[in-house]
Amino acid sequence: MNRPLITLTTDFGEGSPFIAAMKGVMWSIDPDTRVVDLTHSVPAQDIRQGALALRQTALYFPPGTIHVAVVDPGVGTDRAIVYVEMAGHRFIAPDNGLLGLLAAEHPPTKIIRVENSDCCLPDVSATFHGRDVMAPVAAWLGSGFSPEKLGPATERLTQLNWPEVCRMPQSVEGEVVTVDSFGNLITNITRGMLVDVPTDESVVVRCDGHETRGLFTTYGDQPPMTLLALFGSSGSLELAVVNDNAAAMLGARVGTKVIVAW
Amino acid sequence: MNRPLITLTTDFGEGSPFIAAMKGVMWSIDPDTRVVDLTHSVPAQDIRQGALALRQTALYFPPGTIHVAVVDPGVGTDRAIVYVEMAGHRFIAPDNGLLGLLAAEHPPTKIIRVENSDCCLPDVSATFHGRDVMAPVAAWLGSGFSPEKLGPATERLTQLNWPEVCRMPQSVEGEVVTVDSFGNLITNITRGMLVDVPTDESVVVRCDGHETRGLFTTYGDQPPMTLLALFGSSGSLELAVVNDNAAAMLGARVGTKVIVAW
Amino acid sequence: MNRPLITLTTDFGEGSPFIAAMKGVMWSIDPDTRVVDLTHSVPAQDIRQGALALRQTALYFPPGTIHVAVVDPGVGTDRAIVYVEMAGHRFIAPDNGLLGLLAAEHPPTKIIRVENSDCCLPDVSATFHGRDVMAPVAAWLGSGFSPEKLGPATERLTQLNWPEVCRMPQSVEGEVVTVDSFGNLITNITRGMLVDVPTDESVVVRCDGHETRGLFTTYGDQPPMTLLALFGSSGSLELAVVNDNAAAMLGARVGTKVIVAW
Repeated sequence: MNRPLITLTTDFGEGSPFIAAMKGVMWSIDPDTRVVDLTHSVPAQDIRQGALALRQTALYFPPGTIHVAVVDPGVGTDRAIVYVEMAGHRFIAPDNGLLGLLAAEHPPTKIIRVENSDCCLPDVSATFHGRDVMAPVAAWLGSGFSPEKLGPATERLTQLNWPEVCRMPQSVEGEVVTVDSFGNLITNITRGMLVDVPTDESVVVRCDGHETRGLFTTYGDQPPMTLLALFGSSGSLELAVVNDNAAAMLGARVGTKVIVAW
Repeated sequence: MNRPLITLTTDFGEGSPFIAAMKGVMWSIDPDTRVVDLTHSVPAQDIRQGALALRQTALYFPPGTIHVAVVDPGVGTDRAIVYVEMAGHRFIAPDNGLLGLLAAEHPPTKIIRVENSDCCLPDVSATFHGRDVMAPVAAWLGSGFSPEKLGPATERLTQLNWPEVCRMPQSVEGEVVTVDSFGNLITNITRGMLVDVPTDESVVVRCDGHETRGLFTTYGDQPPMTLLALFGSSGSLELAVVNDNAAAMLGARVGTKVIVAW
Repeated sequence: MNRPLITLTTDFGEGSPFIAAMKGVMWSIDPDTRVVDLTHSVPAQDIRQGALALRQTALYFPPGTIHVAVVDPGVGTDRAIVYVEMAGHRFIAPDNGLLGLLAAEHPPTKIIRVENSDCCLPDVSATFHGRDVMAPVAAWLGSGFSPEKLGPATERLTQLNWPEVCRMPQSVEGEVVTVDSFGNLITNITRGMLVDVPTDESVVVRCDGHETRGLFTTYGDQPPMTLLALFGSSGSLELAVVNDNAAAMLGARVGTKVIVAW
């Protein structure tokens, strides 16, 4: 049987040996496991950033892919681990909001609480369910194990606490929700919120005392070192400084307010 | 033939092109090589941290896996490169203590000095035996080459200089041996050293002027921002701050003393 | 059909979700894609460092490997994306000099401008051609798509602006072109420029107010903490401090002048 891909998203940090331990567990269960890193650079215990990385990336993989996500500050407490099907993909994660952004856009078609200890390592530690529960469950699923055998079905996922965009007649106010590796400031303001809004100089975008005019399509649309606003590759409004680092130049970070007015 | 996995552990840093060079060499020898990163985040030339990463992770992989470890400050000198079998796994590393923690727990069943230049790249550089010797040797072994042809058998590995735990009637004194990516302080005090020791408030754990009472099982056992001691996922005593970074909050690091008294 | 390897070189940073998006796109096109990271640690928009990583690493992979390189400050402008064959390998990159070091040593045998939108994602964003153009093109090529169908052949690649070495009768003056993860200072002075130059103490190497005598072959040739000059594993002159970090100790970085005199 050709195995589905299994992706890993964690807050362990790139190069953490914990990542390799999870992979080793999977290959020990199924030598044909196909595993790929989605990211391990989610800031420690930052569920929102984990949820964003999943929304930004997971659905580019083929349908049927199994996405394992471990951002799990509640490990060892009574928070559930869930198996979720949505958008034709499969997910294994703690039920703490980590799947919340995807679930809001792609209502789950199946949610199962993972409770079958036969799918886990024999000695489940209290501090590393990624290795002892989620990795083995993913490997079993990848090799054809039925998700129904993981535990009881359930109805609802824990929701993600997510900042809302405030919409007014001539403006919207959102905030920076993530900063990419180039220092571009990605906001929670989407293209869909600015339909019928002009893109020319009559639009002003303000962020932390700085402002820029117009909504552009790519970085090269303005001269080097210019602050500009554009709709980025995931459809969200972002602020960038051409050939430089907007986060550093503006002193902005996750949570900084961004206002678009026209 | 289905290839065994080959894992790579180095101090090159994540993303170093040297890693890709090693992989390229392996695939050039054997297009079906299956290679996976264990970690490349061992601090530069830190043999102890490399040995720890291997002990923490290697044996989660399937038996027969080939683990290549390159933390090699003596590259180009007369230190040997060895092939070692232990615990049903295979290892290729400089003979400088890097395999010492595993070997102490799983006595090697075979040690061979790698001397057969036919298994190396044609021009072996003096500064990069990971690429020119260890990678090709691993690829040949993975494709079925007999380890006996690598060179002469030998009896002994270079030992690792490793801090001892001092045991007294009512206490043990160890030290922090590694810090994980969450800032948890992992010590050289194991669960086995504290058999029959109570886990309630009568036990006190001291570290660098801070102290905490009780031995717990997971982070969620105490309120946020609390310092607590627990046996972590590899069976060693660790100090953690719930939802925060113990290393930063305590100013502790590798080598900081930790005392458990009861 | 056994798939060729596809390597990825980007300036996204290790762990960037953008990397996983590219891989997901490739697997969605061809479930049998074989993809491996070359590096994602090229400094943001630093075409020279990207070109160096490719030259240092790409040709260790098997002939026929497809190397995708995304260091692309001009994304969304009219810079071309090119498919290039050289040294028996295949490359996909923006035409901005990123392939310049390899092309200078291995004249391209085929250059094609990638213009066939059938090979791209249906909605090509203006800011992420790695995901929307280069990844799908690589996956199609890997599964057997003919490069001739990508677009029109062309004759010339954009050249890389690269610092020249100044050669005098009794000396050469070059500069540091990259710093590896150990802090070793790699220069643009090659072994070939110093043929017939002695390697003993009559040779002096100067860098930023520091100097060292002799040309060595490995780090262990001098005592710890000694500055020494040697020909590194890629054949370039490098400055290293034994068991320490030359970049930190000398305060040197990319662009710092290095003089060899005899």
